Amino acid sequence: MNGAEWIMKTARETGIDVCFANPGTTELPLVVALDTVGGVRSILGLFEGVCTGAADGYARMSGKPAMVLLHLGPGLANGIANLHNARRGYSPVLMVVGEHAIWHRPYDPPLAMDIESLARTVSGWQHTCSLSDNLGQDVADAIFAAHLGQVSTLIVPYDLQLKQCRQSAIIPYHDRKTPVSPEVVESAAAMLKGGHKSALVLAGNVFRRDGLMIAARIRQACGCDLLTESFPAYIERGAGLPDICRIPYLPEMAMDLLSKYEVLVFAGAKEPVSFFGYEGVPGALLKENQKKFRLARHDQDVMKALCCLADALGAPAAPSEAMLSKHNRPAMPTGGLSADKICSVIAALQPEGAVVVEEAISSGFMYYPLTAGVPQFSLLTLTGGSLGMGAPCAVGAAVACPDRPVIDFQSDGAGMYTVQALWTQAKEGLDVTTLVCSNRSYDILKLELARLGVFSPAVNTARLTDLGGIDWVSIGKGMGVPSARADTAEDLARGLERAFHEPGPHLIEMAM
Amino acid sequence: MNGAEWIMKTARETGIDVCFANPGTTELPLVVALDTVGGVRSILGLFEGVCTGAADGYARMSGKPAMVLLHLGPGLANGIANLHNARRGYSPVLMVVGEHAIWHRPYDPPLAMDIESLARTVSGWQHTCSLSDNLGQDVADAIFAAHLGQVSTLIVPYDLQLKQCRQSAIIPYHDRKTPVSPEVVESAAAMLKGGHKSALVLAGNVFRRDGLMIAARIRQACGCDLLTESFPAYIERGAGLPDICRIPYLPEMAMDLLSKYEVLVFAGAKEPVSFFGYEGVPGALLKENQKKFRLARHDQDVMKALCCLADALGAPAAPSEAMLSKHNRPAMPTGGLSADKICSVIAALQPEGAVVVEEAISSGFMYYPLTAGVPQFSLLTLTGGSLGMGAPCAVGAAVACPDRPVIDFQSDGAGMYTVQALWTQAKEGLDVTTLVCSNRSYDILKLELARLGVFSPAVNTARLTDLGGIDWVSIGKGMGVPSARADTAEDLARGLERAFHEPGPHLIEMAM
Repeated sequence: MNGAEWIMKTARETGIDVCFANPGTTELPLVVALDTVGGVRSILGLFEGVCTGAADGYARMSGKPAMVLLHLGPGLANGIANLHNARRGYSPVLMVVGEHAIWHRPYDPPLAMDIESLARTVSGWQHTCSLSDNLGQDVADAIFAAHLGQVSTLIVPYDLQLKQCRQSAIIPYHDRKTPVSPEVVESAAAMLKGGHKSALVLAGNVFRRDGLMIAARIRQACGCDLLTESFPAYIERGAGLPDICRIPYLPEMAMDLLSKYEVLVFAGAKEPVSFFGYEGVPGALLKENQKKFRLARHDQDVMKALCCLADALGAPAAPSEAMLSKHNRPAMPTGGLSADKICSVIAALQPEGAVVVEEAISSGFMYYPLTAGVPQFSLLTLTGGSLGMGAPCAVGAAVACPDRPVIDFQSDGAGMYTVQALWTQAKEGLDVTTLVCSNRSYDILKLELARLGVFSPAVNTARLTDLGGIDWVSIGKGMGVPSARADTAEDLARGLERAFHEPGPHLIEMAM
Repeated sequence: MNGAEWIMKTARETGIDVCFANPGTTELPLVVALDTVGGVRSILGLFEGVCTGAADGYARMSGKPAMVLLHLGPGLANGIANLHNARRGYSPVLMVVGEHAIWHRPYDPPLAMDIESLARTVSGWQHTCSLSDNLGQDVADAIFAAHLGQVSTLIVPYDLQLKQCRQSAIIPYHDRKTPVSPEVVESAAAMLKGGHKSALVLAGNVFRRDGLMIAARIRQACGCDLLTESFPAYIERGAGLPDICRIPYLPEMAMDLLSKYEVLVFAGAKEPVSFFGYEGVPGALLKENQKKFRLARHDQDVMKALCCLADALGAPAAPSEAMLSKHNRPAMPTGGLSADKICSVIAALQPEGAVVVEEAISSGFMYYPLTAGVPQFSLLTLTGGSLGMGAPCAVGAAVACPDRPVIDFQSDGAGMYTVQALWTQAKEGLDVTTLVCSNRSYDILKLELARLGVFSPAVNTARLTDLGGIDWVSIGKGMGVPSARADTAEDLARGLERAFHEPGPHLIEMAM
């Protein structure tokens, strides 16, 4: 067995079953090992950002890492933007990068780059392999590290992949999550019981049904509000679940919301900061006189801490109906499309169990408030602010959950960054419906320009925010995705019904 | 005048006239300054790799840097692959990256990344600005550094862009190119005159007409062959110019060529190494007993050194006809398309003065030998091996040379990496003809798999090399580029004639 086969065998035995890849020559032994070893499904992306975004989406839905196989420094570089989102969302991702043969590296051949420095910018764990006999343990260590909620990068020289190696027993994973002490739980409970206006700010792996129900019990016990960060990696939502309030993106709105709390307890979440640093607006959104308490860091066992907190507060075994959202779909709008109407149509029609990837940027602001009472669904948002997450993330979500309809609610600007993901959706026959908000503009920049006092952009500024001339229907068809255009809410409703009814991917260009 | 305006004003006065941009919030003061200062043309790319590849193409054609304006770490990350190509081709490129406000950075907001580490992987010079009063000198220094043939990266915090600053006089550029000593020139001349079978291996900024004529004179004086690296950044070629032999990509072919030389003199070129490190094939392609001599490093004045060498060899004032290629177009093929027929049709029809960007990978092997005697043109190749250079580089070449027809001879696999460049070609009305070799496969990987003994790829390997299902005509139309399909040499010829005749961009999908 050669090193590449030892890696693939160990990865499979350590729980890897999908490999998103855009390989080149220095990864070919690993590609061949996918076949000789078997048991890991390979999925091709035509650009590396598709592969890394797909691994992020896969991780958010399944809670476990997929492998991403990329080519040298340039391949990794192309994958970094979406790895940044994965890093900010604490997604487990296993990166495997083929490096030049160890003996060839000193010649500085054309494709040589400083792969380690690139990897370091997004990886919580990384290692460059140096001994073929260690490759099994190396990849197992990488997978174990990824499970802690981070990007793990293994850089594997070509010659080690080809070399025959001695297999040895793998030293298994021990969960290194630090538990939360009873004293900390008691302190949090005391603060929340203190009669002050309070909020529990949640993040991380707590927004599946179980965690949401615990949060609702805590709220019922102490009257706190339930908040989360502006861009959660994963949240379940809808009728019968508690409505978690997202801290607004705009710092003024966020401060307005947050200022009403005397006490804030953080579980898996960081203290909120402004997305950008604007002149005259503070970076930290809480004031000094607000009491802040950290129940658990993101890398601790947040779920367990919440359970203990609920007990300490004497919370009921199940939340009452009043703690949970009631069934409520927005009314179907009619006529020409606007951002708000688009949000309403989607919220009015999205099927139960849908996975919604939301990268609609300026067009998506109203979607979240409209969906508190729709049939339950999973929502994935843009954790790291790095554009081009939507379509790749939808690929990964659909691979992880083949029986659930996936909706990629997508801005046109961000959608262009990783437009190649449509091809993978078509090739794999994934049940993804891409809904492109075609406002032909980087509207979010116009909003930011207005903050700078620029309300009528001059020629260069206008040129740099104008996306006119993209025909998404043709692009979708060119990638193999059945595509249509909607000019009205009625068009969109018809298109959605068809997309949800037919298997495989669809694209609807929503002309605004 | 604020910091952003001081940067733009200084950049314009230091010779920058084009800014390829994909900006975000932290660059908006620089965007606004494009208008308040004026004189720099802004060109939008819908993905950052388009902007960096365009700057590379612009630099190769014009010999000077364009500005690239990108958003924080993720924006820079998306641009790195094509900056790697620029680095390997010694292209001058000025990168400007907007960073979070200095006071906001410690809050580690969602988009924060280690921008400096990213920049270091491709930049020969980089600097993070810290004082608004220095911004003018900072950008001037960056431009001066870029002119040495490297990527210069200036990281500019948002608050400095907005701050009013005191302008001071800019300390100008002093060319730091080390001259080549007369002794070195004499030694090179002595080696070439020694009666051994010899080669002059050239690279860098010597392949414009003047440099080529000096090379031809040297060849005439001493009988040496004229070689260059496998992937030159820029070379002029055609009837009336000397035919420079490219060292083959495959190491066995390269060693076969190189083994016949007893003496090799290097001017601006590095000693040849294998593109990849294969088992049983040496990394360095020259043997120890071959005499090697370095006339000039790439960062020295290679042109001057060649002039001196020609004089030292007593070369004639002008080369004889025998040193130069005779007019010769290949015959027009007929019928269904193959890689070789495609090369022949392009070589048979490409207009005088064309700029050909070649990223045809496995389909382009025959193009170079077929073009020694065509009407003179400029050829740009894939210097760093990082895929997705073709369409962006064509953008930059067309911006630099608006009066010349640009041909992007493009593989389908590599073309998908930066397919968004087609939109910029359409928006700017650039005279680029994109010729896509649609073989629906990563054929180069099949060639590399055969080297590993894999001739019949199994299921996973086959899935990772199969590009079936891309409809380039629809994609081109979707980006606003008039697009057509060619199934035969006759179709292709008709399509080329039309594309060369009509202004603006065109795309032809060449179905193989």
